[in-house]
This record gives sequence, structure tokens and C-alpha cells, in this order.
Amino acid sequence: MGAGSWGTTFAKVMADAVAEQGISVQIWARRDDAAHEINERHTNSRYLRDTKLPQNISASSDRQVVLCGADLVVLAIPSQSLRAELDGFKDLIEPDAVVLSLMKGLERGTDLRMSQVIAEVAELPENRIAVLSGPNLAMEIAREQPTASVVACTDEQTANWIAQLCSAPYFRPYTNDDVLGVELGGIVKNIIALAVGMCDGMGMGDNTKSTVITRGLAETTRLVLALGGRLDTLAGLSGLGDLVATCSSSLSRNNTAGRLLGQGLFLDEVNDRMSQTAEGIKSARAVFDLSRTHDVDMPITEAVVMVLEGMLSVENMAERLLARELKSEGELQ
Amino acid sequence: MGAGSWGTTFAKVMADAVAEQGISVQIWARRDDAAHEINERHTNSRYLRDTKLPQNISASSDRQVVLCGADLVVLAIPSQSLRAELDGFKDLIEPDAVVLSLMKGLERGTDLRMSQVIAEVAELPENRIAVLSGPNLAMEIAREQPTASVVACTDEQTANWIAQLCSAPYFRPYTNDDVLGVELGGIVKNIIALAVGMCDGMGMGDNTKSTVITRGLAETTRLVLALGGRLDTLAGLSGLGDLVATCSSSLSRNNTAGRLLGQGLFLDEVNDRMSQTAEGIKSARAVFDLSRTHDVDMPITEAVVMVLEGMLSVENMAERLLARELKSEGELQ
Repeated sequence: MGAGSWGTTFAKVMADAVAEQGISVQIWARRDDAAHEINERHTNSRYLRDTKLPQNISASSDRQVVLCGADLVVLAIPSQSLRAELDGFKDLIEPDAVVLSLMKGLERGTDLRMSQVIAEVAELPENRIAVLSGPNLAMEIAREQPTASVVACTDEQTANWIAQLCSAPYFRPYTNDDVLGVELGGIVKNIIALAVGMCDGMGMGDNTKSTVITRGLAETTRLVLALGGRLDTLAGLSGLGDLVATCSSSLSRNNTAGRLLGQGLFLDEVNDRMSQTAEGIKSARAVFDLSRTHDVDMPITEAVVMVLEGMLSVENMAERLLARELKSEGELQ
Repeated sequence: MGAGSWGTTFAKVMADAVAEQGISVQIWARRDDAAHEINERHTNSRYLRDTKLPQNISASSDRQVVLCGADLVVLAIPSQSLRAELDGFKDLIEPDAVVLSLMKGLERGTDLRMSQVIAEVAELPENRIAVLSGPNLAMEIAREQPTASVVACTDEQTANWIAQLCSAPYFRPYTNDDVLGVELGGIVKNIIALAVGMCDGMGMGDNTKSTVITRGLAETTRLVLALGGRLDTLAGLSGLGDLVATCSSSLSRNNTAGRLLGQGLFLDEVNDRMSQTAEGIKSARAVFDLSRTHDVDMPITEAVVMVLEGMLSVENMAERLLARELKSEGELQ
């Protein structure tokens, strides 16, 4: 469900993984012309340029067509529209189908993770909801560069089944049962990537950026632990791995948005320049609210929220993050 | 002691930190002309181009001149020469002076860390030996870009005293009492940076490199825990922070050496092209031996050693690191 860059790329991964078993993958595209292009030319040029999609992918703009008979429903919908969209097609999901979320965001207003929104709206039990997250820049996967990822579900059997369905020569999924840790790692890293991008835009070097990444992972870990997730999840591919990939890559929207803010552009100008609003911009306030509810100190997230909401200049943000009293390192973590 | 790029840069940091207190910093340079240039022109152009050194720095090629009356002796000598060098001047160190190591390497043959070599050769107690490590690319610090670092000593008072002496507006030192963790983090990251550089040289993307960084930190952590160090040290600036800075930067010798190996050059050709042999090339075998002694699984370090010793091609290394059975992520960590 969703023919953006990540949704389409993941469809290609699955199609490559299951081609030999004679299984096919169907994409739901909002626009008719996108579905038509995928069926006729096997490309999705708006998001993936000239990447050739496998023969066992087809597309439709009719939800019923793609959901009918589907054992696995993969959601790649903008996170703030999930509730409304899902409400429109939840009754079309097969009774035993598993739902896999590729989305990274917290719902504004409710502060719910995507797996929680799915559980609430589609009324599915935990063992039929999974999430996928990791160092997964879509363009690199579309080019078949070797990539690892994490499938998380509280039910180990479900996670293993999905991992098998998306295990392609260039894509290695691992499994984890810490859904909360995997999901939050993927959400907060977008906010940290905004902060790293801002440092970059202000001309700061790799020493500074690495410090922000390190402290960013520390504050993400604090939040996850407070909410009942696990330390080792954050130290893994969906935590550290995804954070480093996003912060290193010029392909990342969040990193790019941060860089433009760091160069002195206003938020409106940044949003105008980008085809899609960066996910971190949309989730930052919700993550900050969540941290306050659970009394977790997240100074980088707080500073990013203040910059986005116009209460702090990027110059002062950098000063605020770096000028601290000399102290023992452990106290910062 | 040592007028290379890091030794000279750290002398500048200290000189900037203590200038207002009327304290001066003296550099020992092996070559007379280097000492002369520092004294006359306040530059060290071989390593730091046109960076202007503060007025309260002077230099000499006479060990006795610089060590006489020094409260803090900072060592920035190539790690494999430390034992012989230190043996030549240990009797010149003042009776109460503290020794701070900036070096990152394991001594070949003995597998000792630099602080252990210092303790053994100079016969100093633990509370007079400290190490400094963090995301500290020298060229960026020389340009006064904001940087954080970690001073580690088993004695908290010593660590705090050193932190105060090197706390400049652009350089923030934190303290830690886990000397082993800080030191090993700084050593193993050079080997991981070689592996990341190799992936880069072979044209792999940020997804792959982030996976190697994530698993590299995991294997470093395993080694540190087995030897009695702490998990949170590795998650901090001298572990994760330094690893990310080194792996991200084109300024890193280890990253560059790895990239050349990844492009298909032989080790001799790589060493010929670089003014100094990358530290990771020198330490890899010692770290691998240490991991075997303590029965710790370090697949990336093992693969790098095999490449360096001609037993594995870089192409096969990549395959070896990425092609694993599907399994739960925790089992990899």
C-alpha cells in the first residue's frame, strides 16, 4: 500500500525474494498513471528513475484488487495520513493477513507509533502486526547494493516468516521481538538527522556531527528504555545502523532539510524546496511531548523542536548543545 | 612529546586553554627544523599547513629541555616506537608528573595498550597515567571546529585536573574512569574504519557502511566487556563517537587506506602512497590475537587481518561479512 520510493523499492525486494516460488507482489498506487506505468513499463520513474521492476510486480489504484487474497499487507503511507487511509480499507484486509509497517513517524496528537495506530484502527492482535526498519536508504536498495534490515514482531514465528519473504541476494533481514525499540529508533533518528544536517549546514565538521550522533543515540536509548524497549535494539541495525546511514547520506530527506535550515533558510522555504516534508519535521513535537510525559531528558530533540517552532536560532542551538559544564561522561548518557 | 599532526594540535588546544593562567606548553620535536619552525614562525606546516600556533607554545628537539619542570607530559609518539622512545627519556620525567597518552594502538608482540606500556616502562602508578580519546580529527580541531573528547584515568581527580588544562572554547573534554574501554575503543575503530574504507573503495553505499559500523561497534564492545571495561564507554564519545567520525571522514588515514585496498591496490602500494602507515594496519593483528586469547568473536577484525595478510581478497571479504544465515539480531551482537 503506497507507491512512494520506499514502498516501491520494498515491493521490488519482495518480488526478487519470492520470484522463484511463483509468488507475485501487488502495489497499490494512489494515482492511476503510476499504476499504469508500473504495469506497462515496469518503472516508477517519479521516485526510482530508471530502476527496472521485476515481472512479478503489478499495480492497481483499486485497493480491493491488491488486498484480495493477500497474505501480507505492507503499509508505506505517509505517517500522518495512516489513520484515515487505513480506516478506508481495513475491511478489505484478509482475515488472517499480517500487516507490516514500513512507516517511520509518531501520530501527531495521539503520540502513537504506527504499529499502535494499526492495532487500534484495524483491530489486529500483536502477532499480526510487524515493523521493518534499518539502515535502508531506498535508492541504494533499488540499485541492489548489499543491505541489512530488521523485521520486528512480538511473535517470533511471524517475524521469521516475513524475513523469509523479503530475503533477497542484496537484502538480509534479521528478526527482533522488540517492536517498540525498533520503531522508536526509526522515528527519533530522523530528528537527530535534522540536528546533524543543521550542524553540516553551519559548516561544522565530522567531530561535531559525530558528537551529535553519539548523544542523539544516547537520548533515543533513554526514551526507549523508559518506555520498556531494549538497549541492544538501539545498539543494532535499526538503532545505530539506521541513525548513521541517515546522518551520513546526502540521499536522506531529513539530513537535507537540516542542512538547509543550518544554511539559514526558514522552515517554510525548506518545505517548499523539498518534494515531501521530511519525516523528522513532522514527528519532532510528538517525540518531545512523549519524552516529557515520561520525564526523559532529550536535549537534542528539544533544541530541534525549538528551532522548528521558531523559538531558537540554529546558531544558538549549536551553542546550546555544545557548551556544557565539564563533567563525567556517564552523566550525559 | 611528538610534533605530528595530533601532538601539535593538542599542544595548541592546551596552550589556548591555559594562556590566561600564564602557563606555557612545550613541544618536543624529533627534527631540529620542525622545532625551529614552531619557535620562529609559529607553524608546523608539514602537518598543519598554515595553522597559527599560540604564542605560549615553544619547541625543542632536546627532551631534557621540554621535560624539565613539566607537570603534565603528553605523549604523541608512533605506538610501535613508544617502548624504545620512552625508555630513552623516562628518567627525565619529573617525580610527580602525570603522563597523558594520545596514542591509539596495541604494541605488537605484547598486545599491550599504550597506558600499559607506559606503566611498565616508566614504572608509574595508575593515578599518574591518563589517556585521551574521542571524535577528534586533528585538522578540524586545528581549525577550531567545536569538538568534544574524553579524558580517562582510574583516578577521578587526575582526570578532572587534565580536563581543566585542555578545556578550550572549541574543545570540551569529559572524564571517564574506564581507561581500558576508552583506549580499546580508540584502537579497534581504526580497524573498523579500514573495513568501512574497503566497502567504500568497492563502491558500496551508506546502507552497507552503516551495517559494518554497527557490527564493528558490537564486536569492539564484546572485546571490552570480556576484558573488564564498560558498555557505556563504548556507547559514548570515545567509542561510538570516535568510530563514526573516523569512518565518515575523508581526513582519516585508516579510512583512506581501506578505500585504496578496496579499489584493488596491494598493501605495499597503499603504504607507499601514504606519508604514514595507517594505525589500523599496524594494530589489526594484535587486536585479533587479543580477541582469540579471550575467546571473543570479532568477524570484521578477523576479515581485515586476513585481507592485510593476503589470505582473503577484498571482494570475498565483503561477501563473507554480509552473507550470513537469517537469524535473530541479538545473536549477532
